[in-house]
Amino acid sequence: MIPAGGSAPESVRVRRAWLERAWIGAGAQARVADDVLVEVADGRFTRVEAGWRPGQAPESAPAPSAPRVPGLTVPGLANAHSHAFHRALRGRTQAGRGTFWTWREQMYALAATLDPDSYRRLATAVFREMVATGVTTVGEFHYLHHRPDGGRYDDPNAMGHALVEAAAEAGLRITLLDTLYLSSGFGRAPEGAQVRYSDGDADAWLARVSDVRPADHLVVGRAYHSVRAVPRGQLRAHDPADGPLHVHLSEQVAENEACLAATGLTPTGLLAEAGALGPATSLVHATHLTDADVALLGSSGSWACFCPTTERDLGDGIGPGRALHEAGARLSLGSDSHAVVDLFEEMRALELDERLATRSRGHWSAAELLAAGTAHASLGFADAGRIEVGARADLVTLDTTSVRTAGTGADEATAVFAAGGADVVLVVVDGRVVHERGQEAEVGRQLAAAISETWAGAGA
Amino acid sequence: MIPAGGSAPESVRVRRAWLERAWIGAGAQARVADDVLVEVADGRFTRVEAGWRPGQAPESAPAPSAPRVPGLTVPGLANAHSHAFHRALRGRTQAGRGTFWTWREQMYALAATLDPDSYRRLATAVFREMVATGVTTVGEFHYLHHRPDGGRYDDPNAMGHALVEAAAEAGLRITLLDTLYLSSGFGRAPEGAQVRYSDGDADAWLARVSDVRPADHLVVGRAYHSVRAVPRGQLRAHDPADGPLHVHLSEQVAENEACLAATGLTPTGLLAEAGALGPATSLVHATHLTDADVALLGSSGSWACFCPTTERDLGDGIGPGRALHEAGARLSLGSDSHAVVDLFEEMRALELDERLATRSRGHWSAAELLAAGTAHASLGFADAGRIEVGARADLVTLDTTSVRTAGTGADEATAVFAAGGADVVLVVVDGRVVHERGQEAEVGRQLAAAISETWAGAGA
Repeated sequence: MIPAGGSAPESVRVRRAWLERAWIGAGAQARVADDVLVEVADGRFTRVEAGWRPGQAPESAPAPSAPRVPGLTVPGLANAHSHAFHRALRGRTQAGRGTFWTWREQMYALAATLDPDSYRRLATAVFREMVATGVTTVGEFHYLHHRPDGGRYDDPNAMGHALVEAAAEAGLRITLLDTLYLSSGFGRAPEGAQVRYSDGDADAWLARVSDVRPADHLVVGRAYHSVRAVPRGQLRAHDPADGPLHVHLSEQVAENEACLAATGLTPTGLLAEAGALGPATSLVHATHLTDADVALLGSSGSWACFCPTTERDLGDGIGPGRALHEAGARLSLGSDSHAVVDLFEEMRALELDERLATRSRGHWSAAELLAAGTAHASLGFADAGRIEVGARADLVTLDTTSVRTAGTGADEATAVFAAGGADVVLVVVDGRVVHERGQEAEVGRQLAAAISETWAGAGA
Repeated sequence: MIPAGGSAPESVRVRRAWLERAWIGAGAQARVADDVLVEVADGRFTRVEAGWRPGQAPESAPAPSAPRVPGLTVPGLANAHSHAFHRALRGRTQAGRGTFWTWREQMYALAATLDPDSYRRLATAVFREMVATGVTTVGEFHYLHHRPDGGRYDDPNAMGHALVEAAAEAGLRITLLDTLYLSSGFGRAPEGAQVRYSDGDADAWLARVSDVRPADHLVVGRAYHSVRAVPRGQLRAHDPADGPLHVHLSEQVAENEACLAATGLTPTGLLAEAGALGPATSLVHATHLTDADVALLGSSGSWACFCPTTERDLGDGIGPGRALHEAGARLSLGSDSHAVVDLFEEMRALELDERLATRSRGHWSAAELLAAGTAHASLGFADAGRIEVGARADLVTLDTTSVRTAGTGADEATAVFAAGGADVVLVVVDGRVVHERGQEAEVGRQLAAAISETWAGAGA
């Protein structure tokens, strides 16, 4: 494994690279260019130049050789919604009929078993899987705070710190979305596995979270689990200066109905009433919305974080992605339950599921889908997600000669509509090489060991 | 490349293998078993025995060593609906807005360029991509019969024979579904690229098709392109003794509306009137059906061939898969336009898209989805698709230690819900090894060369 963090040897830092082809620039100016020379210092791009040829020295220095990187290089991907421990459920919840709610029971059985050490080992393996598929920032929606009986660990943030350590070990940045979870439903106390989620009230939660210290590779954000889990009186206005706030929103019709019955408002309306929407807020799923909800999310400049492969897996439905965008909201993507860890699949699923819902094509350009897959800003890393001078030096290189990508044009449509995580050959985070093709087998072994340990702890 | 066909050297024939884990048996009896010894003679399984240990000799002979095959082995997959040349469109039709019908214009531009030699090279590469992802029989829905100007080739079946040769070279079986295409719409003559599709009338088509000789690895089947393309008076009753008949059915609402307007019947009703439904008939897509259509397809014992990743890509919608099954129809799967070539993705998409449509889980068991992905019987190979004595000796082995499959249980849910084409490490067709991990790069090169040649021919 390539060491990450301050102890990384010089040899794995990228100083110069000659990219065969890369998606460079930002926003509407982003484009695919050939022969892109990048230079990196202190983890940021200091030079990004298309049409480069060896022998062209920068004016200030003799020309060191720049290793050529074949393939199509795109910015690092942002996995804006993760519950790392759900990875242990992959392939194990598909037997028999059921709903989101029966799936949740299986997930809770797993949630009851983890402690800081086992969680660190599991999350390290899961984060390495993400890295191997091109993810450079993960937003970890974290609510397994306390001991299974609800008692505090000696370090009340032991579970959160385990996730932070796991990310450092895997070599990607993390936004720890420390989650407030106070009730099992409208007017119902936490029960079962949920007792380890609860801090008792919002003040105790904020006091605990304030002890987690941000770092260059760590943003400490906040989350309200959902309007089911946070009583109306505990929802606070969110100041964007406090960093990202994420909330599960309207994933299920039943949640909307319960919210309306209890409060007379939709979940979106309730969050708007509390002042919790805005440009630092991400609403996760945002599936079953009224027109008024869409307008509120748009006018507040909030993010909608879609998790299409999970929404397929859980039968959530297809959210109004394009309508949210037209209303002014921004879109991000997450692999959520990790039934699939492949942000390329999430990017195309945003478009493809909208096609299923509308029976027409072309809702999103490939550039827009890449923007949704690189929405590091929704995680508080506004300086990542694009290959341009000054940005964090993340690179994800795709094999354009695989059975999936050969013959497709090697452009942004290749990345979004043909490639998959299996095509990732190189991943650089903040100027450090954190994954190269050939290391997947080791990641697979680490996943198998950690998941086996997790289920042994669950008595399965 | 491993040679296929009668010239294959003995060294690539499987005589015995010790499978770490395999999905054995058929139908409701199929199950995952450990340590499965298989023996093969003349391309068929002669022994399938679970719980085997080395040293257990068959009674009749000393025990030769059986090479151990790690991973999970499943039966060969059947790709029941393919248009090989569409692979050249992957990643190239995603720009801008559009519908099924604008996509079709791009596809037609490509269709105008191919000749028997270039088609053989392209199809060989595409079939090798299929083999690399576990496909052992392809159903090629073939309508590029004649010269671009409608003139006959010296061999009127030159294009069909090119496909048959391509399959032999790639090492998989083929069902050539030679397609009748007479009209551009209800009452409209073929136009543009369509002139090369038409045989003039059904009798001329049948006469031409009768010159293609079946073989052990080749079933010659028939297809009606669609009710748009075959006038009512040219639709014939189908005798199952004549082999498979495939028809595109109700992929688009506009087709249904035009059919109703022209005939007073739904497309399903029109085929039923002609006597074209039945146990040898596959209806491809079967997306927009009335309850009466579903009942007709079920009571006739017809197959419905779903192509979920294409139906997502083209915005077709989600067909009533489970309702068709409950009514008595059987389900098969195809990768159709090859936006994706991954039957594992098609298998899970059948379930996942039904979840999106219904907001509940568990419509299909993993065993049922595997059955849909191995429906060789719908292609006239009733003796393939299961690992049991007497069946054709196809094996597809999946890596159960990859980042996708590690920790998932290594059972049928792993195959259907976690694995992908990239996890295929070994493919055996009729007892011959036709693909092993490590050969993908060569397949990618072959695809790139053939697709580049195709577009050069199209002037692009």
